[in-house]
Amino acid sequence: MLFGTEEYKERIQRTKERMAQNGIEVLLITDPANMNYLSGYDGWSFYVHQMLLIIDDEEQPIWIGRGQDANGAKVTTWLFHDNIIPYPDDYVQSETKHPMDFVSDILKQIGQDRRAIGIEMDNYYFTAKCCEQLKKGLLNASFIDATSLVNWVRIIKSDKEIQYMKRAAAIVERAMMEGIGLINEGVRECDVAAKIFHTQITGTEEFGGDYPAIMPLLPSGEKTSTPHLTWTDERYKKGETVILELSGCYRRYHSPLARTVNIGKPSIEFQTLSDVVVEGINACLDMIKPGIACEEIEEAWRRTIEKSGIVKESRLGYSMGLNYPPDWGEHTASIRKGDKTILQPNMTFHLIPGIWLDRYGFEVSESFRVTESGCETFASIPRQLFIKEDTLISN
Amino acid sequence: MLFGTEEYKERIQRTKERMAQNGIEVLLITDPANMNYLSGYDGWSFYVHQMLLIIDDEEQPIWIGRGQDANGAKVTTWLFHDNIIPYPDDYVQSETKHPMDFVSDILKQIGQDRRAIGIEMDNYYFTAKCCEQLKKGLLNASFIDATSLVNWVRIIKSDKEIQYMKRAAAIVERAMMEGIGLINEGVRECDVAAKIFHTQITGTEEFGGDYPAIMPLLPSGEKTSTPHLTWTDERYKKGETVILELSGCYRRYHSPLARTVNIGKPSIEFQTLSDVVVEGINACLDMIKPGIACEEIEEAWRRTIEKSGIVKESRLGYSMGLNYPPDWGEHTASIRKGDKTILQPNMTFHLIPGIWLDRYGFEVSESFRVTESGCETFASIPRQLFIKEDTLISN
Repeated sequence: MLFGTEEYKERIQRTKERMAQNGIEVLLITDPANMNYLSGYDGWSFYVHQMLLIIDDEEQPIWIGRGQDANGAKVTTWLFHDNIIPYPDDYVQSETKHPMDFVSDILKQIGQDRRAIGIEMDNYYFTAKCCEQLKKGLLNASFIDATSLVNWVRIIKSDKEIQYMKRAAAIVERAMMEGIGLINEGVRECDVAAKIFHTQITGTEEFGGDYPAIMPLLPSGEKTSTPHLTWTDERYKKGETVILELSGCYRRYHSPLARTVNIGKPSIEFQTLSDVVVEGINACLDMIKPGIACEEIEEAWRRTIEKSGIVKESRLGYSMGLNYPPDWGEHTASIRKGDKTILQPNMTFHLIPGIWLDRYGFEVSESFRVTESGCETFASIPRQLFIKEDTLISN
Repeated sequence: MLFGTEEYKERIQRTKERMAQNGIEVLLITDPANMNYLSGYDGWSFYVHQMLLIIDDEEQPIWIGRGQDANGAKVTTWLFHDNIIPYPDDYVQSETKHPMDFVSDILKQIGQDRRAIGIEMDNYYFTAKCCEQLKKGLLNASFIDATSLVNWVRIIKSDKEIQYMKRAAAIVERAMMEGIGLINEGVRECDVAAKIFHTQITGTEEFGGDYPAIMPLLPSGEKTSTPHLTWTDERYKKGETVILELSGCYRRYHSPLARTVNIGKPSIEFQTLSDVVVEGINACLDMIKPGIACEEIEEAWRRTIEKSGIVKESRLGYSMGLNYPPDWGEHTASIRKGDKTILQPNMTFHLIPGIWLDRYGFEVSESFRVTESGCETFASIPRQLFIKEDTLISN
């Protein structure tokens, strides 16, 4: 287990407080990060339906999942084995049986089928079918949308969580410098990605890395006009720009980071774009402190870059930390216009002011925690456009 | 683009035939593998809501997604740019706006809001909230469950798809042998995982690898009692068993493979278990051919291992090929009791008879395609328990 039982119990307590505020008596948690946060459960089993039940007057959660994953729950959680309930394998990806029917039956058996039930309506792992089957199976229950309820409980990190994110940052620093070092004319994109992966997972001598919730994003050339492409097995060409957005991950905790490399001298307009964005991110990092609202960071960014004529319509960043694929973002606070979340110490964000134009783009980012008086970035790598002057063919 | 426009059009045609059979006039596709299959769309953007619309009397699909991903759709799909419709960024992970409201508005604008609309009810990327919002927004439409409709169109692979899976197999052979070679007493689990990742991504001299839809599964020791744990930064101990379940991936096409390693001489009971499972998988591979039903493979397995007293309750395998996280399985045919899918040439499966007992487990698997007269495995690695006799400390 990654945290002491007391920390898990305290998290459950804070979850129950939010449940009470929302009139929820039983909470069904399907978000794997939320399951992990409250129980310790870890495993690549979220591709089948599984959940954690939190009942208002029970101390321990109940884990329900596929039979073959029950031993995984015994190994990774603080739950009594009696609270680990496996469903038979013929419920898996079947056209005739659905795991939510099993869940409904359990709720009936334990007398929890006439209660106010919270469900994570907009979570990847709670499909439309899950909702439909549960409602069919639990005619006497009422349902309340509990999307992001536990995510909001997660928003302020404990010191141990911050320590894990610092370890993730030590890993991403190495992976980023490895990637920047290798990118050059004639090198295959996949060979750079492979070395980055190697560094992400081998970690340091002291601790190893976990798989990040998002694979390395490595668009090159015109593909830098969009942020979410990965890599190919093509070779980099002279003059191309390459964006790297990667995360270190330690025990499911992330520290993402983005930088941009130019193979050879950049055009004046590209250098100007990168200077503007770097000035903008620096202005943000300078003004971040407890007590301000997320939207104020966006305002500082906008005021700083205004004179350049560059406009960024997409959000500037988001809360993050513990997560599983497909996203390291926490789905709580966003750094954008209208977000009035007030910063507090040990909130953690990925600030990523990417600009994607029609033919090229530029990204530079920092993951940071809010401190007592300002903020501190997790990683420490120069905030600049990296230029590979020496474009010899390497293979 | 990975396939010619003709292949995409032919896939659309087969999809429309299934739509007609199911009374569906407009199909909303959110499964990233289905989106890729019909449009070519590729990118790690499935963590935000996005979809592909197939309209019964329109030749081209319509892509709807986040603004910053629209250039990605232009780069990776065969669609006219007019058919790529971006939504503004304030729809992303917002508590006040939902991307399905945007989708409803589009459907109204193009006069498709009074039709029979197919939705992938049990897909990870179509949440309960997506369904609720769509139904609120489209009061004059009728909705039909289209879960796995396109998945079933995918079940027989084209020759080019088979070629991609063979490339994935060339990658997994290398990654598996790398992993088996490195596992030994005193080696950190994360260092083995890192080398496996490196090989998965760097691929071969001729072609590079893509990220697999499932990260390497590497349980060790007692954790082999469950299949879906990844790795830690602990060091392997003498006598421990390690299971490796990995896939090569080439342009989103997979060839998964599982093998088991014992560090030092295995116990008699463990060697017996592995012999039984190997005998069972061999019996299955010997009898597979077009015309038989999936459940007949399970029957052959059961008859073969019966005498050992070992019972396997979970399914024996599943159709697979093109996919994105969190699963390389296709969610169509399963090799299990009751599955009456008839095998046809170029169907492709992962046959994985894993046995997980209370304190240990064993896995051996093959990915195969059904041929005209039998089956052929994609990879070629001995089907056996690998024993590391030499347990010197290496670091």
